[in-house]
Amino acid sequence: MTDGIPRPKVALIAIGDELLNGQQLDTNSAWLSERLWALGWEVVNITLLGDHEDQIVEALAVQGRKMDLVLTTGGLGPTLDDLTRHAVARAMGVELVLDQAVVDWLTRLFESFGRTMNESNKRQALFPAGAAVLQNNFGTAPGFRIQHPGGAWMASFPGPPRELHAMFETELVPFLRATFPAVPEPRMASFHLFGVSESDFAAEVGPWMERAAMPRMGVCASGRVLKVRIEDSGPAGHESMRVFEARVAEFETRFAPAIFSRQDPSTALALGQLLMKESVTFACAESCTGGEIASRLVAQAGISDVFLEGFVTYSNNAKRDRLGVPQELLDAHGAVSGPVVEAMALGAAKACGARLAVSTSGVAGPGGGSEEKPVGLVYIGVAIDGYVQSHELRFPDRGRDLIRDWAATSACELARRALVARLAGPGTQKNP
Amino acid sequence: MTDGIPRPKVALIAIGDELLNGQQLDTNSAWLSERLWALGWEVVNITLLGDHEDQIVEALAVQGRKMDLVLTTGGLGPTLDDLTRHAVARAMGVELVLDQAVVDWLTRLFESFGRTMNESNKRQALFPAGAAVLQNNFGTAPGFRIQHPGGAWMASFPGPPRELHAMFETELVPFLRATFPAVPEPRMASFHLFGVSESDFAAEVGPWMERAAMPRMGVCASGRVLKVRIEDSGPAGHESMRVFEARVAEFETRFAPAIFSRQDPSTALALGQLLMKESVTFACAESCTGGEIASRLVAQAGISDVFLEGFVTYSNNAKRDRLGVPQELLDAHGAVSGPVVEAMALGAAKACGARLAVSTSGVAGPGGGSEEKPVGLVYIGVAIDGYVQSHELRFPDRGRDLIRDWAATSACELARRALVARLAGPGTQKNP
Repeated sequence: MTDGIPRPKVALIAIGDELLNGQQLDTNSAWLSERLWALGWEVVNITLLGDHEDQIVEALAVQGRKMDLVLTTGGLGPTLDDLTRHAVARAMGVELVLDQAVVDWLTRLFESFGRTMNESNKRQALFPAGAAVLQNNFGTAPGFRIQHPGGAWMASFPGPPRELHAMFETELVPFLRATFPAVPEPRMASFHLFGVSESDFAAEVGPWMERAAMPRMGVCASGRVLKVRIEDSGPAGHESMRVFEARVAEFETRFAPAIFSRQDPSTALALGQLLMKESVTFACAESCTGGEIASRLVAQAGISDVFLEGFVTYSNNAKRDRLGVPQELLDAHGAVSGPVVEAMALGAAKACGARLAVSTSGVAGPGGGSEEKPVGLVYIGVAIDGYVQSHELRFPDRGRDLIRDWAATSACELARRALVARLAGPGTQKNP
Repeated sequence: MTDGIPRPKVALIAIGDELLNGQQLDTNSAWLSERLWALGWEVVNITLLGDHEDQIVEALAVQGRKMDLVLTTGGLGPTLDDLTRHAVARAMGVELVLDQAVVDWLTRLFESFGRTMNESNKRQALFPAGAAVLQNNFGTAPGFRIQHPGGAWMASFPGPPRELHAMFETELVPFLRATFPAVPEPRMASFHLFGVSESDFAAEVGPWMERAAMPRMGVCASGRVLKVRIEDSGPAGHESMRVFEARVAEFETRFAPAIFSRQDPSTALALGQLLMKESVTFACAESCTGGEIASRLVAQAGISDVFLEGFVTYSNNAKRDRLGVPQELLDAHGAVSGPVVEAMALGAAKACGARLAVSTSGVAGPGGGSEEKPVGLVYIGVAIDGYVQSHELRFPDRGRDLIRDWAATSACELARRALVARLAGPGTQKNP
């Protein structure tokens, strides 16, 4: 990637018994990996260990010999099983020393909560001799960084994600940039696609995905969305930059209809952003998704300007009473049908005066499937300015949760595409 | 725990470049940890590695010397960067051999999809010499297990969670029970509590939570829910069993009002199960939670018998038009207020004829807060059989997602408690 400058290597060590008995998922390491990758670092390995000082010391020693940087998360609390600072001191062969400035800061912090600092909290003011303190503005556990005589840097962060994220950005990133100034941050482009299967995608891009290709392309399928990443792994310089930019531009053109976002894998976010940008009012009428579409939209700050109302019409009565779906339509086609989702979408739009409305009805399982309407069959209706259309989707039966997730993801994207088409000009078929 | 029999030790190794650049969270290891713990095993460490054969071989060799069992996940696909089987063979010092029975099975499997097996898929029929094949009924990558001359067992599983989970249960668990018959599965009781803070809990249980206590108690707070685990770490036998059972019984009595579930941390599941058991019809009217409560209930199979309707009334118009909240009430108190959530809950119940209804309205942020109504202020209304009450909750401002999550979790539990009280007899104050 970098005229002979290899990416510096980093190992992550996550510490805590709760990570080894299934009580707590380690999301910190994945977060750090993504950030470090973007900063030009190579995460070589991640180790999860329990609260055992000897094991932590051994892992620090092993990784410290091989890496440019070792980061730990967790084990900086005030209790006796918070052992990270002791382990780092032992691995470095130095003593722990009390930092009076941190004691004073902790004392003031507890006073500001109206509490007296417990003696055990003083443990959080102990640091390996020679370490620099990393300030924590969201908790009582400061972190620290220290350089091993062999050259490797070590830095330790508390486990709560909010504290880790803020401290990493403000306390470590500037230090890394200053200390490793030659590391170029890699060029990277990401795309999120809907409606293309992983195997069709692989066939379409062919050699672009080969392991030795430059730039390198990675793809990962998640919940009906393909996440594609194009990474510049060639040498620095104008030629490499030109090849990278040409590839990104060609990709964008070739997959334009399928790409719904560069930055984010959420189809609901892409829909919400377009609604807000264009000031288009929105409603949803949900049967099998049961409020999931509404919840994904309401997750976005500012959506109240355009999100008028959500109808969770799981029962036939609700479809009839709230959305005006005719009983004859329900009798003739069943609730899981194209005509019913079209009536639901039109009914939702009309009930609250929204320009765009999306509706869902499907067989999410585990029961309720039939030969004609198997588990996984989902209809999605989209109404825009009085025009309406419906889509029939057949998902594999991978369980109720996934079917509902895929239905919500698909509904948001089908609604967004209908709106894009409508904004581009007329052409949708009017239907009643 | 076991008359001198230590828990056997296991190391987990998760393999894949996507685990080291933040593209994919490793949920497999946490799942395996929880299952292995329940089977009496001690997970000593977890290592995440990229698709680099040398690193995998080294990790297998290191762990194979220390552990009774090493499990790998990932890297069993058909492509050139799927290296697990090669790495295990090298670590064991054996050749890879083609298993013709697996080739035949793969050929038939592809035929059943209407496809011809690719030559590259034959890679999935290669196994280290001497390995036993672990059958995969949900994908094309079989796993395998093999014993190291030094005594340790190794087993390799594919990365997709659905395949891993099924194969672990059917292909490995019976083998482990047969091969390590002396391992007693630990006695464990779990409780899920709402409405108790972690520090109040710690003060209340006192010495029960000490590290050396027997049985041992672990607690972890997640989204307004405390997950408590009581583990029998004493020796086997009647006396230990008696102590464990007495502790569990005492805990259950002491925290009865706060415990909403033994098995599951979801307050929505506890509510849904009670609704179905008692055949009580339900509706929800959501402002700040925006469909999240409905979605959590509709996630439960069979809920259609009792879940009548959800109203996502994010706008004041919707609160007025759909739920009949008087405009004067909105003007006098604001949408985020006790009187409004009470009117919302009563209005939702009335609109669809539900016995129980819950409503939410709050300031989820990031904007919209004021001194009087700061970000994090949430009101929850609960109506049951025409009686109604409201609750004022003040959450810390930890961001929109968490505030909405906490509000939905709280609303479900407050609704469940109101229903429990109602079922136990009258006593709720009528409040038209």
